[in-house]
This record gives sequence, C-alpha cells and structure tokens, in this order.
Amino acid sequence: MFSPQGRQLTDVAARTLTDGLVPVGVLGATGSVGQRMVGLLEGHPWFRVAYVTGSERSRGLPYREAARWAQSRPIPPGVADMEVRATRATDEAPLVLSALDAAVAGPVETAFAQAGALVVSNARSHRMDPAVPLVVPEVNPDHLGLLDTQPTRPGGIVTNPNCSTIGLALTLAPLHRAFGVRRLHVVTLQAVSGAGIPGVSSMEILDNVIPFIGGEEEKMERETRKILGVFGGEGIEPASLEVSAQCNRVPVIDGHLACVSVELEEEPEPEEAARVMADFRGRPQRLGLPSAPRRPLHVLEADDAPQPRLHRDLEGGMAVPVGRVRGCPLLTLRFVLLSHNTLRGAAGGSLLTAELALAEGRVPGRSEVP
Amino acid sequence: MFSPQGRQLTDVAARTLTDGLVPVGVLGATGSVGQRMVGLLEGHPWFRVAYVTGSERSRGLPYREAARWAQSRPIPPGVADMEVRATRATDEAPLVLSALDAAVAGPVETAFAQAGALVVSNARSHRMDPAVPLVVPEVNPDHLGLLDTQPTRPGGIVTNPNCSTIGLALTLAPLHRAFGVRRLHVVTLQAVSGAGIPGVSSMEILDNVIPFIGGEEEKMERETRKILGVFGGEGIEPASLEVSAQCNRVPVIDGHLACVSVELEEEPEPEEAARVMADFRGRPQRLGLPSAPRRPLHVLEADDAPQPRLHRDLEGGMAVPVGRVRGCPLLTLRFVLLSHNTLRGAAGGSLLTAELALAEGRVPGRSEVP
Amino acid sequence: MFSPQGRQLTDVAARTLTDGLVPVGVLGATGSVGQRMVGLLEGHPWFRVAYVTGSERSRGLPYREAARWAQSRPIPPGVADMEVRATRATDEAPLVLSALDAAVAGPVETAFAQAGALVVSNARSHRMDPAVPLVVPEVNPDHLGLLDTQPTRPGGIVTNPNCSTIGLALTLAPLHRAFGVRRLHVVTLQAVSGAGIPGVSSMEILDNVIPFIGGEEEKMERETRKILGVFGGEGIEPASLEVSAQCNRVPVIDGHLACVSVELEEEPEPEEAARVMADFRGRPQRLGLPSAPRRPLHVLEADDAPQPRLHRDLEGGMAVPVGRVRGCPLLTLRFVLLSHNTLRGAAGGSLLTAELALAEGRVPGRSEVP
Amino acid sequence: MFSPQGRQLTDVAARTLTDGLVPVGVLGATGSVGQRMVGLLEGHPWFRVAYVTGSERSRGLPYREAARWAQSRPIPPGVADMEVRATRATDEAPLVLSALDAAVAGPVETAFAQAGALVVSNARSHRMDPAVPLVVPEVNPDHLGLLDTQPTRPGGIVTNPNCSTIGLALTLAPLHRAFGVRRLHVVTLQAVSGAGIPGVSSMEILDNVIPFIGGEEEKMERETRKILGVFGGEGIEPASLEVSAQCNRVPVIDGHLACVSVELEEEPEPEEAARVMADFRGRPQRLGLPSAPRRPLHVLEADDAPQPRLHRDLEGGMAVPVGRVRGCPLLTLRFVLLSHNTLRGAAGGSLLTAELALAEGRVPGRSEVP
Repeated sequence: MFSPQGRQLTDVAARTLTDGLVPVGVLGATGSVGQRMVGLLEGHPWFRVAYVTGSERSRGLPYREAARWAQSRPIPPGVADMEVRATRATDEAPLVLSALDAAVAGPVETAFAQAGALVVSNARSHRMDPAVPLVVPEVNPDHLGLLDTQPTRPGGIVTNPNCSTIGLALTLAPLHRAFGVRRLHVVTLQAVSGAGIPGVSSMEILDNVIPFIGGEEEKMERETRKILGVFGGEGIEPASLEVSAQCNRVPVIDGHLACVSVELEEEPEPEEAARVMADFRGRPQRLGLPSAPRRPLHVLEADDAPQPRLHRDLEGGMAVPVGRVRGCPLLTLRFVLLSHNTLRGAAGGSLLTAELALAEGRVPGRSEVP
Repeated sequence: MFSPQGRQLTDVAARTLTDGLVPVGVLGATGSVGQRMVGLLEGHPWFRVAYVTGSERSRGLPYREAARWAQSRPIPPGVADMEVRATRATDEAPLVLSALDAAVAGPVETAFAQAGALVVSNARSHRMDPAVPLVVPEVNPDHLGLLDTQPTRPGGIVTNPNCSTIGLALTLAPLHRAFGVRRLHVVTLQAVSGAGIPGVSSMEILDNVIPFIGGEEEKMERETRKILGVFGGEGIEPASLEVSAQCNRVPVIDGHLACVSVELEEEPEPEEAARVMADFRGRPQRLGLPSAPRRPLHVLEADDAPQPRLHRDLEGGMAVPVGRVRGCPLLTLRFVLLSHNTLRGAAGGSLLTAELALAEGRVPGRSEVP
Repeated sequence: MFSPQGRQLTDVAARTLTDGLVPVGVLGATGSVGQRMVGLLEGHPWFRVAYVTGSERSRGLPYREAARWAQSRPIPPGVADMEVRATRATDEAPLVLSALDAAVAGPVETAFAQAGALVVSNARSHRMDPAVPLVVPEVNPDHLGLLDTQPTRPGGIVTNPNCSTIGLALTLAPLHRAFGVRRLHVVTLQAVSGAGIPGVSSMEILDNVIPFIGGEEEKMERETRKILGVFGGEGIEPASLEVSAQCNRVPVIDGHLACVSVELEEEPEPEEAARVMADFRGRPQRLGLPSAPRRPLHVLEADDAPQPRLHRDLEGGMAVPVGRVRGCPLLTLRFVLLSHNTLRGAAGGSLLTAELALAEGRVPGRSEVP
Repeated sequence: MFSPQGRQLTDVAARTLTDGLVPVGVLGATGSVGQRMVGLLEGHPWFRVAYVTGSERSRGLPYREAARWAQSRPIPPGVADMEVRATRATDEAPLVLSALDAAVAGPVETAFAQAGALVVSNARSHRMDPAVPLVVPEVNPDHLGLLDTQPTRPGGIVTNPNCSTIGLALTLAPLHRAFGVRRLHVVTLQAVSGAGIPGVSSMEILDNVIPFIGGEEEKMERETRKILGVFGGEGIEPASLEVSAQCNRVPVIDGHLACVSVELEEEPEPEEAARVMADFRGRPQRLGLPSAPRRPLHVLEADDAPQPRLHRDLEGGMAVPVGRVRGCPLLTLRFVLLSHNTLRGAAGGSLLTAELALAEGRVPGRSEVP
C-alpha cells in the first residue's frame, strides 16, 4: 500500500489531489517483483494500474488466480479481478513498469517503447545499452537526458539497476562527490527473494550459504560505473573506479547486506564520511516524489546494525541503512549497508524512477504530475 | 567418534595399537566445544578421557546430566557416567584439553601448566602471550618450540586460534610460502555454533544476518600475523601482512565461510595458486596423526562451492574446502573457503595439536606415542 | 504504531478525539512483550504511556538504552528517553499493562491493584485465581464482572490468556455457541518469539523442531475451559470440554499455528461451521474498540492457508486467520488456525482487554472513554 | 555409504563376504531419493550398482554431471562416471530400485517387472494395487507373498510406503499387536527434503510453516490400513482402524516429526506401551539384514525428544526415535515419533525391503544372498 509517510507534500505532489491519475501497465505482474509493483501502486497518488500482463499460462485468468500472491498484505481489490493479458505492445498506458524476466524483456520492452510508452524496466536486458539510462533517482537523475537520444521517442526505456547495485550506488554517490572513490571491495549477503519465485530451493539454502550468484558480480562491477558516470549530452562516460564484488546467497527472505571497503582520493575521518552519507539528499527528496524516503541513507550507530530483519523496512523499504562506518587497514573506509532488494532494489526503485520521469516531463503526453 | 578414515597408518600411528593410552583431562567439558572434544576422543587410538570438569553448577553430576548433549551422535558410554569435577589444577593427566570460557581460562590453565600438564587450549586468553605457541599444526608446528621458553616446563600451554582464523591461516600458508602474501581482505559468514550454547538467540538470527561479532575481526587480524610469523628460537616475529576482516553471523549451524581477496608479491595464474593450495601438506600429514586430514585443503571446482551444509564434513570436518579461486580486479587473487568451526576450528583443531605435541615429545613424561 | 484501519469510529471511539488520554504504566517494558506494548501505545487514541518499569539492571537508564529494541519499527520518540523505573506499586496511573515475567508478576501485580490501579496482565501468575477474569474480549467480556469480587477494588487484576490459548478460544467460541464443543485435539507449531528474548537458542531450533514447551499443554487445556466457562455472578463455572494439547516449537519468528480437531454436539457441514466462524463478532467489534479487528476470524479459502509469514499480520496482527475447515474421520471438524503470538496473543490482546475495561467503566476514576 | 554398525553379522549376512554381488539398477537416480540410494549402495555387502537411469535431459551424461549432487558425502567414485541411461525396461539387473517420480513410475515399473526384474519402488503409483505388497520390513514382511499373485512373476513390484507413513506404521505395529489400535490422530511436521529438489521454494518456507501437503493425508490414512492389514494368501484385508492425519511442512532439512494420539482396545500404562515399543523387533533384525537397525524403535526419555536435527541419524537414519509417551485425555496414548524421511522413509526403506526380498528368495534367479 502506498504510504506518504506523514510528511508535508510539496507543491508537485499536492497537485495530484485534484488531477486525474496516470494509467500504468505492469508487465510480468504475477511474479515476485510484479506483485510488489502491484502492491505499491495501490492508493498511489499519481498512478493507477491500467492493465497487468503475464505469461501464456496466466493469460485470461483473473489476477487473483494467476498470481500466487505471496505478500503479507492482501491483493489490492482493484487489481484482484483484472484479467491478465499476454504481454503485447500497446499504447494504452503512457507509462509501463516492467518486471519481466530478462529472458523475454529485451524485444518486448522495445516494442512497448515503439508503441509510444515510457517503459521503466527492472530487467537487465537494456541496462548497458548506451542510449538507455540506468537510474538511481537520487544519484543520477540527469541521465534521463539519454532518453532524447532514443529512436523511439517520445516512447523510450529507462532501467533500474540490479538489486544489489542500487544500495551500493546510493552509498557511493555522496562519498564520490565529497572525496572521490578510486576502488572498492564489496561482499554481499543477499536474500532469497532476489532470485524470485520459486527461485532458490529450500534444499539449497536452509542451514546453508551459497557463495555464488550467476552474473551478479559482473553486474555490480559494471553497473556501478555507469550509474556514477557522467552524462555529457551524447552518452555516459563511466566512472573510472575499480570494483571487486563477491556475492553470496543467505537464508534471509528480504534485504541484501553488503560489507564494503572503499579507497577514496581524500582521506576523511570516518565520522566525516558518516556525516556526508547521513546528509545526502537527491532530486527525489527535493521534488517530494511520493515514494522518496525523507533520507536516502540512515547512518545507524549500534555496533551490530544494520540487520535485514530489523532495518529493511525503514521508510517503507526505500531508505538504505548504513552502519559500522570505520577505517580500513587496507583501503580508506569500511561500512555495512542494507537495502530492501524487492522494494528499493526492484519494485520501489522502479516506481521512484517512474515518479521522477513524470515529474521531469518524460512521460509521453503528460507535461505535469496529476 | 574418531575415524581413521580408512587410510594406512604410518609407523607413528601403528604403535598405538600395542601401548597404553594417554590420559586426557577435558576442561569445560559440558559446553559446546567441550562436547565436541568428548565426542572426538571416543575410540581415539592414542588418548582416553581421564576426567571432565565443568562449572560449579555441574559439579558432582554425572556427565550425561550436566551436559545438555546437543550432538547428533550419542554421548560416549565411557564418559556418560563420569562425575563432573570442578576445574581445579591437577597432574592426574599429563595432557589437558581446555574448552573453558575465556572469562575463566587464563589463570586456571596456568595452574594446570604449573601442576605439570601440557594444556592445549581453545580459549583466547593466552593466544597472544609471547611465550605461548598459537598453532595450526600444518602451518607452524615449529612454534611448539616456544614451550621451551615457558617457566612452567615441562608443563605448558599451547593454544588453538580463533575458529575463523584457522581456515584462513591454512589457506594463506601455502600461498605465503609460494608467492608471498602482502595484504588481504576477508569477509566471513559465520555459523551460530561459534557462539556456543545458548549463544545466539533464535530471535536474533532467524531470517537475519548480524554484521558484527565482538572482538572477532581484531582476532583474525592479529592471530593471522602470529601464526604465519617466524619462530627464531626466542620468540615469534609476526608476519608483516595487513589484514582487513569483516565478520558476520548467519543462520547456519556449523561452518564458517570466508570470502578472501589477497595481494601477493608474485602474481600467479589462479590455476597455479589453486594447485599450490591443493598440493599443500604439512607435518600432521607426514606424521600420519590420527586426526589429520589426508589433504588439508580441497580445491573444489563447482562454481557454487564450498557450501557449509554440503562441504563442512569433508574428511571428518578436518579438511578445509576452497572454491572460486580466481583473479581480483583490485588485489591479486580471490577465493572462498569454508572451515568447520567446531571441528577444525575448535575441538578437532585442539585435538590435532595435542596429537602433534605427543608425536613431537612435548607431552610431559611421554617420550613417544602409545 | 496504532492503526485505526480506516474504519468508521463508533460514538465510543469518537469521544477520544476531544478528551484527555488515560495514563498507562507499562510493567516489564523492556522485554519482548513489553516492547510490543510500548509500540502499540504509540499514537493510541485513548492511552498514553505514563511510566515504564524494568528490572534492577535497567533502573535509571533511558528506555532506549535499557530496551534491546528488536522491533522493525523504531522506538516511539515519546518513550525513548523515559527513565526506566524499578517495578514498585504506585497509583500514578489508573491503568497498568503488565508484561512481567511470571517469576515476579504475582505479588507485584497484587500490590499495584492494592494501590488502586487496574492491572491488565499478560503473565500467567493470576490467570487461574478464582476471582481474576481471564479474558478474550470477543469471547467472555462479561467475565470482567469478577472484578467486583476482588478485595482490592476499585483496583484489580484482569489477565490475558497464554499466547497459544487465545487463538484457540477465539475459534472455539462461535462453534461452542452454535454447536456445542465436547472435546478436541490440538497440536501447535509455535513461533520462537513466544519464548521471549533470548528465549530459544539458535542452536536449538535451526533446522529443527522441539516437540515440547514446558507447561504449555496444561495451560491450553485449563485456560480454555475457564475462558469458555460461565460467569454466574460469584465465580466461573468452567466449560466441561476435554482438551488434548501437544505443543511444538518451530523455527518461525512470529505466529502460532494450530491444527485442531473438535467434536461437536451437533454435526454441522464444514461450510456451515466455516460460516459461523467467519460471521463471529464480539463486544469489541460492537463497541468499536480501537484495537479490535473488524472481523476476529478470517476464514481463508486457499488449500495451504493460513501460513505464519503470510497471514500473521492480518488486521494489524489482531485477527485470527482460519483455514482448511473440513470434516474429521474421528471427531466432527478439523481446521487450522494462526494467531500472532506477540500481538493478538500477548501485547495486542492485553491492550484490547484494557480498552474493553475502559469502555465498560472498569478503569478506576474513569467513567468513560477519553 | 553402507555401514554395518559394528554388529555381528548373522549367517545370512556372513555369506555375502564370499559370493558375488547382486547387480542393481537404480531408476531416477539423479533426483533426491535416487542420490540417497546411490549413496547407500556404496560398499553394500550384497548389492552393486549395475546402471543408473534419468530423464531425457540427463541421458548420456556422466552421473556426476547429471546429478546435482546435494549429499554431504561425496559421489561414490564407482558411479560418478557411469553414463546415465534413459529409463527403458531391461533384465540386465534382477533387482531394480525405483526412485522415479510418480508421474512416470507406473507403466515403466510394470515394464521392468515384465522384463523379469523385481522392482522395489519408492513411488506411490502401485502402492494401492491389490496385488502389490506395500512393505515395511519389520511390520509386514509376509505381504511379500502377494508377489506370487502378480502376473509378471518371477518379475514383480514391491512398494515402499510414503515417507510419513513408514515411521507411523513402525510405531503402531507393536501397539496394534499388543493392545489393538482402534483409531488415531496424527499431525506431522515434515521436512522439505520430502518434496525433493527443487521441491519447496525457500520463499515459501523460511520463517514459515505450510499447513498442507497435497495428497499426503489421504496416503497416511490409506497406506497405514494396508500395511497393518492381514495377508490371507489371496490378498490383503486392510486393518479397520480409523486415521485422522493433518500434515504440515516445516523449515527442516531432513526428518519428519509426528504427534500421535491413539485409541487402543486395551488400556496399558504409558510405561508398558513404551516398553512394548522399545522391545519391538522384526524379521530384518532376526535375519540380520545389512541395513536393519538393531532396534527399530528407540524410546527416548528426555522431555523434549525426539528432535529432527539431533535424532534423525540414529542407527544410520534407519531407527525411529519415539518420545513423550504419555496418556491422552481423549484417547488412550500420546507420543511423538521421528523418522528420517529420505533414509528410513525412502531410500533406506527401499533398500531394506530389497534386502528382505533377497533374503526371502524373492529376487529372480537368486536363491540366496551373496
């Protein structure tokens, strides 16, 4: 359910109270991330679900039957009885959230963009396309400018990074600006929901850890450079930092933890680095986007924080808690971060990007928020 | 239960078949590590349990009542009805295995040494004493020479490293000899049994990770340097390598996993480094010590190995599986290692050290193995 | 945080908007149930926290330091800096919620009652006292009449049943009224939070089930009869039904599941029994008590419902989901029920009872709700 | 690995030391139960693996590649490089162990029987066929006589009960003989390995319980009656007892726990009933079959026993621990039992049945054990 978190709405958000909502299509709505998207869109002040798509197996079924709903909140009543469509391009909704599997996402998303929609995708298919923005709204909102270079405009594609990259990029961004990030080690402890449903078998993960997630380390290394890169009008110049990532799967439902050690060009005291992270705000905060956390990074003081079960839901799962900010005997700084992988790291991240796109006039035919 | 693992016994071991067994006292026998020690001593070819000690609460009770036995094998019948003693120094047994809590181990172990026993301790109390060897039998058996500098000789104290250090030291040793280790990053994912019983509350760890283990990171950094250090007759010159350790607790019963990234002076191909690790043998293998694994390190080829539940019991939990040996974008080499923290990392490690001490004539009054 | 769940407030509740709040003392506020109580009182429309008490160890500390806060929501700001008191009787607050351990609750709660407060207790100490009501607000609100027989009036003691009994009593109540319950089998699968913190060790419960919870089976058998008993002005005549309970601990954080098989005097079709449960409403619903779920029982239709992780939070953890209502080859009817053991089964249940007591004029010096 | 558990071999078993081994085909060898079968056959004194079969996907691959080996012991070297065959009927081995999925087992097993092999099947397909024995070797070895009524003799089919039924039947058998079982309630808490690999998704079971296992309750009710039934030469007269089963999936790797309440014709004291269970022995014990536990039932005295992680491996996972034997307020007797579902309840149970069949001269062309 959408939660405005009790804060004052800015002008931008306030206008939503009087205007019509933007229809949104949800692609791959029956899977794990798709269910989260549908859940987050319930009661959203700017968007309403226009249609939901699924695989051939689901086609024609009411959503409540097609989705094996596994969220602790009930299915939104407005969507429960919607008929699941096949995933075929249409311009019925100017905005499309895609939770499609990467195996099929590539050409399908392109087709929707050609049909005139802005597709905000959680799939990896287009992330590294030179003309496709890979956006963490607080970090590189200006990369949306790449949309002007896409041949399908006003339709287009924006992507959301991999779930383990988003939290990392959010913590690196303020450090990079303030002190310059040269290189970093990151070891992740990732939740099973990152693999979807059925995803990881219980036989593989109970009383166990799997020290490997196919393709994940490469994504973290590559995507981080693109997100922190510079948009020069024509394309993205990736940041030159070196990343060594090692990814593990642990028996946790939600919440990716990462142990980070980073080398900075300048050498701040840990307290200063912590303050820079705590003070970090981005365009979503300035615009008051409905899904934006008040503070993207929460620096926690307890020795043993952050922890997935205790801290993953901070600010509706959209804030990234950071802890144990301290020096490193090898590089400059060490810290631990946590991000809710299916909220901030997937469905919520996509939604925030969609909100940013709308606020920036990037949704076809919508020059302002509702 | 002791398992000779079907291999040919060397001469050293073969003699045990005709001679009397060495009586061994087990201090702190009712706890988690103490139970493992009692279990491993069942049917041991060289040793037999002479007495077991426990806290005041346990004193006078039969062991079966005092120990809240939590092993999947039944209590050894020979020990089940032994009366648990208070932990007071005695020379009844020339060899003592200590699973005492660090809160009490220090002076008590010294008293046993003064009474004339060789104490092999799993507690941290004496690990960093300049005159006390900190031994991983395959890595630094010569450090036993420090016993000659202890004032209590022939009684003395030998220590076992921290459970997360042992596996790391075993993997670093052959790399250090072959290529020179300069510095390393290590992030651990540690099992709950490392905290003993009751240890970690289920409320803390189900569906969760705790990114902090008090004192653990400092131990890994400090102990590793001592173990890999050089014994020059008078003392240990610690190795000069730099270590950055980050320790996490995960919901796994047994088996500490570690993601390592290491900088070497020479730059071998990963395949060569893997071969050096796979070929590593130490004095326990040459002596055919009863608890020695045939191969200290098993280099596994599967992408997703090692895993705690699948690989922790290799060679009776005494071998250390290693996987994902590959290059590192920042340093030289990355790999993942696993060690069974209550076997190789505690009770089994202590036992192997005791076997080494006996074979090297370091147990008072015993010039040879049984 | 208190959630009015979007429903229309009745007249009773509406008055709270204009009047002053009732000060409430929380005894044992730093433990697991105490934390839940403090959390639920945040923003409560009728109550505000007047003071919090803890053990000697906590005395004088600010609550934020004394409580090892383990809830996913942050500590309520208004309580975080309160100084924790020793648990000594006072009449500062006319209403007291007790999360004391049974080891100390008995005489302390009596002292608070003598000092003039109404104590709503989650401890077992007074549950079976003949003059003390054991209340599930939807089931036996009239048992509050027993307060008139207590010597400490207008101070007094009301108790909350054991966490595994509450859900059972809620499902049996409508069946008992409609069809007469003669006897029943119940096997529970209980969450670790029921044992508090630290409670169950992770070493005991990971990859495991413990088929025993000390005293739990007797409590379920005895308390169920009292709750379903008849109040005749002078005392409670227990219901005559026979109960066979078997209790297990499972590796689940929150949510007690119970498999029930019940023999009824009449033999309804399962569909009819399900409808009777689904239609059940009690006095809390009629009074519109702030913590009352709209529907005490939710009959779920999926084959594999209810499940702890998916359904424990229904209506803020105050509703009891029921599933698999079907016939029984031996007795009359079988079903599965789930109750959130620290919300409906402890802190939330106590709070609902406190709300009922206030609405019924049982809080000393408060003839009506705020 | 086969373990003779240190006991004296009887004459029957001793003969195996001098004779040739019986070749055995393993159908569905790459799955969870098939892997267990392959593991148990390593070093077996009577049997050797002749061939392994798998699905089309596996066909032609070496076993080590086709099986996603998930056992803590390494793949038996003799099988690791065997080429996996398609599952087509052959008489190459006179004895066949089938771990086929029920979706395909029916006709395929019949074809192997027609080809002349004795098929011991773990699949449910033929369990309720009137001419097919459903055998727990200690309980109803005489049901093997049904093989004489099968049209394919000397080839034929014998089946192994469902994993949750075997432990129940083993505990009921001595009670039924001594006191007469009239009816019973059983609630199971079943391990995830019972669903195979991938089986239960981690997303479904972490921090959760699923109160439903499709078809399981019916199997327990039906199979128990057949196993305890009487073989009169022509067919089985099922026992007339009534069974009410409720089955739950819990986050445990191996080991099905069951809470049982049983009504007996006679009313023994719990101690007497416990003694009858502890003293129970069957034909496998008298014949000294290699996989037979010395005692089929171990009555444990601890309040909180049996527990899956601590007790599932008793006697190599072939013994069934029983605990909490006590009276029942409703029926006569209550107790808790545990059985290792992939050993005693599947692969080990099939193997023991195969050993029984060989010892009884039921393997085609083999009149005696090796």
